[in-house]
Amino acid sequence: MTAEIISVGTELLLGDIVDTNAQALGKAFARHGIGHRHRQTVGDNLDRLADALRLALSRCDLVVTIGGLGPTEDDLTRDGIALALEDELVMDQEIGDRLQAAFRARNLPWLDSQLRQAMRPSCGEAIANPNGTAPGLVCRKNGKTVVAMPGPRNEFLPMLDGPVAGILAELGGGSLILSRTLRASGIGESMLEERLRPLMKSENPTLAPYAKTGEVHLRLTVQAGSSEAAKAMLDEAEAQVRSELGSLIYGVGDETLALAVIRELTERGKTLAVAESCTGGGLGAFLTSVPGSSSAFLGGVISYANEAKTALLGVSPATLSEHGAVSEQCACEMAEGARQRLGSDFALSITGVAGPDGGTSEKPVGLVYIGLASAAGVKAVKNQFVGGREAVRERSRMAALTLLRRELAAR
Amino acid sequence: MTAEIISVGTELLLGDIVDTNAQALGKAFARHGIGHRHRQTVGDNLDRLADALRLALSRCDLVVTIGGLGPTEDDLTRDGIALALEDELVMDQEIGDRLQAAFRARNLPWLDSQLRQAMRPSCGEAIANPNGTAPGLVCRKNGKTVVAMPGPRNEFLPMLDGPVAGILAELGGGSLILSRTLRASGIGESMLEERLRPLMKSENPTLAPYAKTGEVHLRLTVQAGSSEAAKAMLDEAEAQVRSELGSLIYGVGDETLALAVIRELTERGKTLAVAESCTGGGLGAFLTSVPGSSSAFLGGVISYANEAKTALLGVSPATLSEHGAVSEQCACEMAEGARQRLGSDFALSITGVAGPDGGTSEKPVGLVYIGLASAAGVKAVKNQFVGGREAVRERSRMAALTLLRRELAAR
Repeated sequence: MTAEIISVGTELLLGDIVDTNAQALGKAFARHGIGHRHRQTVGDNLDRLADALRLALSRCDLVVTIGGLGPTEDDLTRDGIALALEDELVMDQEIGDRLQAAFRARNLPWLDSQLRQAMRPSCGEAIANPNGTAPGLVCRKNGKTVVAMPGPRNEFLPMLDGPVAGILAELGGGSLILSRTLRASGIGESMLEERLRPLMKSENPTLAPYAKTGEVHLRLTVQAGSSEAAKAMLDEAEAQVRSELGSLIYGVGDETLALAVIRELTERGKTLAVAESCTGGGLGAFLTSVPGSSSAFLGGVISYANEAKTALLGVSPATLSEHGAVSEQCACEMAEGARQRLGSDFALSITGVAGPDGGTSEKPVGLVYIGLASAAGVKAVKNQFVGGREAVRERSRMAALTLLRRELAAR
Repeated sequence: MTAEIISVGTELLLGDIVDTNAQALGKAFARHGIGHRHRQTVGDNLDRLADALRLALSRCDLVVTIGGLGPTEDDLTRDGIALALEDELVMDQEIGDRLQAAFRARNLPWLDSQLRQAMRPSCGEAIANPNGTAPGLVCRKNGKTVVAMPGPRNEFLPMLDGPVAGILAELGGGSLILSRTLRASGIGESMLEERLRPLMKSENPTLAPYAKTGEVHLRLTVQAGSSEAAKAMLDEAEAQVRSELGSLIYGVGDETLALAVIRELTERGKTLAVAESCTGGGLGAFLTSVPGSSSAFLGGVISYANEAKTALLGVSPATLSEHGAVSEQCACEMAEGARQRLGSDFALSITGVAGPDGGTSEKPVGLVYIGLASAAGVKAVKNQFVGGREAVRERSRMAALTLLRRELAAR
């Protein structure tokens, strides 16, 4: 079983965007033991797309296109597939009805041009796309399979992880490569590598650390004859890593640190509030990215201006004038103010200099105080982060949640 | 003049790395007015690489390979180029001498296998690589040009910006392609296309819409003889689009909607506060992603729990029990509460059902009310968004800022 990717879009050739979708799909081929020898990229041009499809079909079993499924005139993937498969496009009434219903439900003006998205080769069927209007397609003809996937990343990835993974599993058969990612915070990549050195010598499973902003991901990868065997090997490797790193590991797979914190708080029946200055709401947004976070997260205050710190959190004007907004004292008063006003068990505060301007020699860009208040009292930790404005803000929210996790683990 | 990129490396197909080199090269082609219609990616396999080169040479004037120039046995690009050009590999004494001198200077052990890097097709010449051992190559035969560049990014980019830029300028013959992106919110992709249909028929400049979450990007692209001429054409096309779309265009290039709003508020000397429920701080985080946003943004309240809406914003318990938290009334009271407590000129509120749970037939997932308070009064707008939790949250913050922009434009 061999496969080939055709990425469609002039914006890819012009270098406006980088083709991370093809990367993710290449990984998926590898996971399913599907050989992958060529990749092509073509612009929004019908003849060149059809030629690329014909070439790919001449040398492999499965072709997956990415992009060109939207409603506009330069979305030509459906037409290209029909040409290359010597098939004709037909209107799929079911897709069309679903499209019109979606537009009605959203009270959006309907244009008949939307119906381009309901066309498909007669040999094809739709792949549901809950995150966009254009469905994917899977077409089977003469022993070949062509899968068409949408380009927008928030539509592409769920389709890859869902229905397309099923198609790949069916086509791939046989030997299996499986990976599992463990996520750690509160430890740097080098220190983590040092502690895991003996485990990292193994060839199956392999263990590879990846530094992310404010955390480290550890990828375990095994090759096995069945998914049960692969899973057992991954379980054993995970247990070894956990026995070495303990509570530094906060999650598995795509579990975020926010999810880990919300889960732990919910299990203990505890609640959390936040008081944010330089992150401007980013910590709250991260926490509420977790479905059901209302079980533990009550809300908070974005005290960006000094007046807001005083009016909404009760930070004393004396603290602001004597120590400044970026200080241990201010972080403590922000956290305690949020805890009292929201009536929560815990409150986290963040105040710092995110940059690029506003730094001084005494309080440079990247200086961030993180406060934590609970019934046991209040404290604040000083951090000096590196990186640009967004990196400082992201590291701040990761450090705040790591501080709370440590506090919970110590209880 | 047309060109094609061939990226070489099994690690690219496996998705271990993402092909940012090809992106940078695509941009360079565009800058030099070199047409670029196809891209191929192949693994470390001689036959497949030679086939890819032959295909590329059959349809364009310039082929640039990336990767496969190192000293190991799976570095096959030199061999592939010689095969495809029906040329033979010769030892370049000068390259070989330079290599050996470099090893001596760095006190590294010499292996004769390093001399693979001194081989070149007889029609080729070396391109200096001050950042690595393997030089690049430029080969000219039968009116075609093949350029081979190293894969490591710290070697690739300086070579692209240096000697390869010279080759591209020479081949491009002075003609230049320039793009500019206009960003619009408050209009869908299809409706925008409808309004711009006459402009979209133009071939130079071309005009292409790209749907993003909560906004649409419009790319204008021109081909011209000089950068002044290109800029003048882009200015004229931009003026035409703006005269059609007016204030729906909020920014150019990488300007975000948050930046546009902060800029407009700052110019008018007005301030903004927020009250966020389902976005949990995401609107504040977006606004404060703009450096210097403190000139207009004061802060706000994350009123995730109902108690927080009452305690921090003064939403009346009667409103919550009669209409619910996701209602026009609650959105109005949240906005007005934030405006009064923060003392701002404007306040935006967001309350909705982000999902995936919590929806009812009356208040389905995606239902979001957005409130806007000012000295002139308070109002709230009902929205029904599609997509998953994050898409609903992102569309909400885009819609909130669009609502404020409209209000400002109407004054």
